[in-house]
Amino acid sequence: MSEHEEKYNVNLLGSDEQALRLSRLKELMRRAGIVDAIVRDNADIYYLTGRVFRGYIYINVERDLPLYFVKQPNHLYSEPAELLYRIRKPEDIAPALAALGIETSMPALELDSISYTEASRLRKSFGATEAQPDISPVMRGARSVKTAAEQEMLRRSGAKQTLVYERIPQLYSEGMTDIELQIEIERASRLEGCLGQFRVAGPDMELFMGNVLTGDNADTPSPYDFAMGGEGLDPSIPVGANGTMIKPGMPVMVDVNGNYNGYMTDMTRMYIAGDIPAEAERANELSAAICEQLAAMMTPGAKAADLYARALQMASEAGMEEYFMGHRSHAGFVGHGVGIEVNEAPVIAPRSRDILADGNVIALEPKFVIPGLGAVGVENTYIVHADRAAEVITTARTAISLLD
Amino acid sequence: MSEHEEKYNVNLLGSDEQALRLSRLKELMRRAGIVDAIVRDNADIYYLTGRVFRGYIYINVERDLPLYFVKQPNHLYSEPAELLYRIRKPEDIAPALAALGIETSMPALELDSISYTEASRLRKSFGATEAQPDISPVMRGARSVKTAAEQEMLRRSGAKQTLVYERIPQLYSEGMTDIELQIEIERASRLEGCLGQFRVAGPDMELFMGNVLTGDNADTPSPYDFAMGGEGLDPSIPVGANGTMIKPGMPVMVDVNGNYNGYMTDMTRMYIAGDIPAEAERANELSAAICEQLAAMMTPGAKAADLYARALQMASEAGMEEYFMGHRSHAGFVGHGVGIEVNEAPVIAPRSRDILADGNVIALEPKFVIPGLGAVGVENTYIVHADRAAEVITTARTAISLLD
Repeated sequence: MSEHEEKYNVNLLGSDEQALRLSRLKELMRRAGIVDAIVRDNADIYYLTGRVFRGYIYINVERDLPLYFVKQPNHLYSEPAELLYRIRKPEDIAPALAALGIETSMPALELDSISYTEASRLRKSFGATEAQPDISPVMRGARSVKTAAEQEMLRRSGAKQTLVYERIPQLYSEGMTDIELQIEIERASRLEGCLGQFRVAGPDMELFMGNVLTGDNADTPSPYDFAMGGEGLDPSIPVGANGTMIKPGMPVMVDVNGNYNGYMTDMTRMYIAGDIPAEAERANELSAAICEQLAAMMTPGAKAADLYARALQMASEAGMEEYFMGHRSHAGFVGHGVGIEVNEAPVIAPRSRDILADGNVIALEPKFVIPGLGAVGVENTYIVHADRAAEVITTARTAISLLD
Repeated sequence: MSEHEEKYNVNLLGSDEQALRLSRLKELMRRAGIVDAIVRDNADIYYLTGRVFRGYIYINVERDLPLYFVKQPNHLYSEPAELLYRIRKPEDIAPALAALGIETSMPALELDSISYTEASRLRKSFGATEAQPDISPVMRGARSVKTAAEQEMLRRSGAKQTLVYERIPQLYSEGMTDIELQIEIERASRLEGCLGQFRVAGPDMELFMGNVLTGDNADTPSPYDFAMGGEGLDPSIPVGANGTMIKPGMPVMVDVNGNYNGYMTDMTRMYIAGDIPAEAERANELSAAICEQLAAMMTPGAKAADLYARALQMASEAGMEEYFMGHRSHAGFVGHGVGIEVNEAPVIAPRSRDILADGNVIALEPKFVIPGLGAVGVENTYIVHADRAAEVITTARTAISLLD
């Protein structure tokens, strides 16, 4: 086979791993009364095949294997061959399914992310009057429980992210601004293998490589639904570092991209140049204590809302409720699932109805924004296990590190 | 006013600049028979206000000023005050408009980007049976013609991007891989003020900071609709550098992020360590000649399809048609509008029906992928003017630069 005939299998997961993911997905589809679905989100395509291609995956609860409808790239094939179809446009899927004898009225779509235009085109091609049902919550549920292989990917990202965080004190030099330190952390992350890409669900979230906050900037509300805000460098992307000089005694919060292999961990640590103010140390210890307490509660069956309540209670008992998850504006959650995207299920929030399950991977980030001091807090990513305590996979020391 | 009562005006453009953008948008709405619209895309919100907030903008051809329906951040205000409304959910807009005496059956939505779920919620809240009309093509048309202020933003991005590109030879050291060189270019770009954020329209496009391609990697098709592909570092984001060692005589194509202020220029230049192969030099000169020829044709009224045809003809006359815009797979365009997003109108493609207009900003990228050599070509960003020749705003020298 010449170099230019090189072919790559569309399913990079291997058949066992893909079957595991599919069986859980199909179980949730059955429970939701959904017979079949078409997914097209890059994150969902990556989940089901271990790669990104341009096209669609058709899943039917009655069929063992999915069908791939591929627009790009053209060098993909599948084993067995009859699973893969070349298409030019979404309207090509319905007749292809009909030709295969697969009867369907309207496959479920990812209605939370697919554009109105594309959903309507698919709906019309199936001759349906409504683009229903919705596979979005089902995919979200399936992806929230990580397989052993996914957990291993996350452990590997966590280990690399930890290596980079441990190197941060050496990246600092006196006179740096928040963004200058962030740029050195970005470079160190990339050299360690960070892919950079920061996948988020939903149209409202934009962030480049992460967030480095120091001083009052931490208290500037941003339009994005992240735990912390920041003015940013420009009103076109108003979040994060804004060029504040890092001053002695002023806490620096580092929360940067942990995507080293398609699965991302989420970790936050504190750094200070010069003496550590007692107030910062106290807030950081409280944050670490909340993480530890919540981690001890993170067993299958635990209620996400109870975890949030416990975190708030601990903040409140320490007299820190006013600063909990922000000051001028408060984030509505203290933790969130992570995986292919940074904002997965479950959500650890006051009115969340999520129940924890074996295999959830959850980032906890009880943070405080203290006027005159800035943002303080740690964040760790944990794997929820049925047979043992939640496993922390972001293992840099939680104490505030000295920058000099 | 204490620090914690700080307020920011939602319209950062100033009233004249905003009026200019609105008048063009409303003119296009009238031509399309659209009375009113609700936009929510971050790129469109930024276009109409000079900032990003979480919420919606209501535009009506009969009303002078837009209305802002804001979810976040809470410190925004507007002048005059009655233009801004706090909302919790999209369903709050319809009753607010009714209370203001604004009669509307169904405002146009950005159907190409809004999710099916959100469009349906808005549709229901207006009591409409269909989420029509579509403001997407109208917004695209409005944004494709840059005002003088936008052109100035683009010139500034182009100047900074040029500074960084001129520094690339010093960033190289022997033994580097493509990704190692890219990381140094990323850092240099960020230190020069690059915001990092790479805004693209459509769900199918993902790219981190840009693309550095060397050797055969350039010939690996990617699922994204960029001019060039590349295997990437990981199948979760299969595009760009893949860790190939940069070898003497092997062309390195650099095409990285030019977003320095919310408006991005697009530039590609070639670099080689050691001797420059004659074939690379020829291909690069051909690419630069195509750019020059097309630039000379870029006047208001010119047909995008004619530009593409001319580029293809020049490639063909040079015996390079087989390698034009790729080899194993070919990009379907030779140029594209740039601005807030990297893939704006017009599109310079064979079947494009776009007609160039005064104020279009267009990146031309006639590139070649030559087996055994790799990707070769230049890319420049131009402003189309009515009263003079197209203005190039990415001004690094087009000749291949030596890396050592």
